[in-house]
Amino acid sequence: MVVVLAGGVGAAKFIEGVVQVVPPAQLTAIVNTGDDFVLHGLQIAPDLDIVTCTLADLIDRQQGWGIAGDTTNCMEWLVRLGGPSWFKLGDRDLAIHLRRTAMRQAGHTLSDIADHFRQVFGVAVHILPMSDDPAPTHILTAAGEVHFETYFVERHAQDDVYGVRLHAAGPARPAPGVLAAIAAAEVVLVAPSNPIVSIGPILALPGVREALKSTTARVVAVSPIVGGVALKGPAVPLLRATGHEVSALGVARAYADFLDGMVIDQVDAALAPAIAALGLRVAVTDTIMRGPGEKAHLATTALALAR
Amino acid sequence: MVVVLAGGVGAAKFIEGVVQVVPPAQLTAIVNTGDDFVLHGLQIAPDLDIVTCTLADLIDRQQGWGIAGDTTNCMEWLVRLGGPSWFKLGDRDLAIHLRRTAMRQAGHTLSDIADHFRQVFGVAVHILPMSDDPAPTHILTAAGEVHFETYFVERHAQDDVYGVRLHAAGPARPAPGVLAAIAAAEVVLVAPSNPIVSIGPILALPGVREALKSTTARVVAVSPIVGGVALKGPAVPLLRATGHEVSALGVARAYADFLDGMVIDQVDAALAPAIAALGLRVAVTDTIMRGPGEKAHLATTALALAR
Repeated sequence: MVVVLAGGVGAAKFIEGVVQVVPPAQLTAIVNTGDDFVLHGLQIAPDLDIVTCTLADLIDRQQGWGIAGDTTNCMEWLVRLGGPSWFKLGDRDLAIHLRRTAMRQAGHTLSDIADHFRQVFGVAVHILPMSDDPAPTHILTAAGEVHFETYFVERHAQDDVYGVRLHAAGPARPAPGVLAAIAAAEVVLVAPSNPIVSIGPILALPGVREALKSTTARVVAVSPIVGGVALKGPAVPLLRATGHEVSALGVARAYADFLDGMVIDQVDAALAPAIAALGLRVAVTDTIMRGPGEKAHLATTALALAR
Repeated sequence: MVVVLAGGVGAAKFIEGVVQVVPPAQLTAIVNTGDDFVLHGLQIAPDLDIVTCTLADLIDRQQGWGIAGDTTNCMEWLVRLGGPSWFKLGDRDLAIHLRRTAMRQAGHTLSDIADHFRQVFGVAVHILPMSDDPAPTHILTAAGEVHFETYFVERHAQDDVYGVRLHAAGPARPAPGVLAAIAAAEVVLVAPSNPIVSIGPILALPGVREALKSTTARVVAVSPIVGGVALKGPAVPLLRATGHEVSALGVARAYADFLDGMVIDQVDAALAPAIAALGLRVAVTDTIMRGPGEKAHLATTALALAR
């Protein structure tokens, strides 16, 4: 069994590589829910949807999110009727949020719903939300404390960041199966996702960091920082604001207490000795996932480092 | 000022006639909300939407409800994800329900929202929901007590009906402006809507029947029963189950305590003396609204009877 700790777009692409070399049914993705929020009264779970719809090959590959070929007729009228316009919702996409909201109101957990959706969409990979409890990530900015999606999408990550508040709604527990999956895994892979707001919320759940330290699995991360920049999203300001060096070495240090190995990009080869000095195995390769070949290569590299 | 007591499709077409002969801004529609219900977590108000979207010329004229040219991409995925399929929701249509639900959750009343929507859609007629309180109409059937929309749409009006329970959620008050509009009107028209489940819920609100009796306005109804049948919807079984004769005379008797006049179809001309014997003026004409000409003619006839 292989476990992947996952955020959104980068994680989804990485898992597409892993399923080329590991049978999907032997793979469990533990997905960040810190980005989840309510808009138009709907419960939106961006990372769960990105992972599920990417693995179902329904995703809009240009954007990395949303449904390929979706229409936006509902959204256009929502805006016409005075609704917020900053978060784009396609008509088919909307069905996912509507159904999730209705099922939550009917008493189903986020875990149940995530499992139902991945089965409907024919995804064999097990998809676990990190928690069934609300665990919103707040960003402390010059404009005040705001939800991550407000900071990132509504305000275009333009505010100065002073800090990050994880699980801002109060204590959140790992979803059923999360700790057991980590304990039972042969390999745990940390996807090339934002260490602060994608992987961070998972690591902050009670018991998760301890499970990662005590598991017999090898734990290998893929650096989301390449040449000092993030391939996608606001990792740079968020790493900086939380006191981390913005580099693969900074990420390695953040994970060092539970990590066995790290895959870094060839442009960061010079950082390999410093990462190795943390007691980690290091693999240096091309980590940019342009297509299926690169995705499979990256997965193979990470798994080889673990085994 | 002219007030129309309104249900859904029949009322909307009738009001389209009235606005041809009365300036729309001098017209107030008091609309049944007994059909309102929650589906997919959304607050749906069928009659309000039918009236508003018909007057905005957005309605699907074939169906009498829904938005012309709308897509159903969200609905198809909702059903795929296990959602109920019996109530069709177009993508643009859905925006109305989503926005209404979000605005209700934000503390706006149904009245506020109805007024906002009609302004966005450029409708000059004042549109008042009969009540801002939940006032669901339940139908007592062989299959149990069910919401009107369940009886009518989900179960295709096929169950034997034993009775009707109005305001099944408990006491409902008239929305702000309802009693005042009736009191201040020169003419009150009762649209050719279902007397039991469209007009009945309005009449059952505390003070409405009294306001109709005490207003100085002439009150004129258009019979929704023509030749012993309803042009649309389940008026026949509902009239029967509530002890009314299924005829224009039966409708006249149900309204007789507040009515001054009644417009009946030419096929029911033989009922005119019996209706007149109730103390009512009677106009006999073609009441079938095939197009704009017939709608205007029917409105003119009703207004002439009142004046």
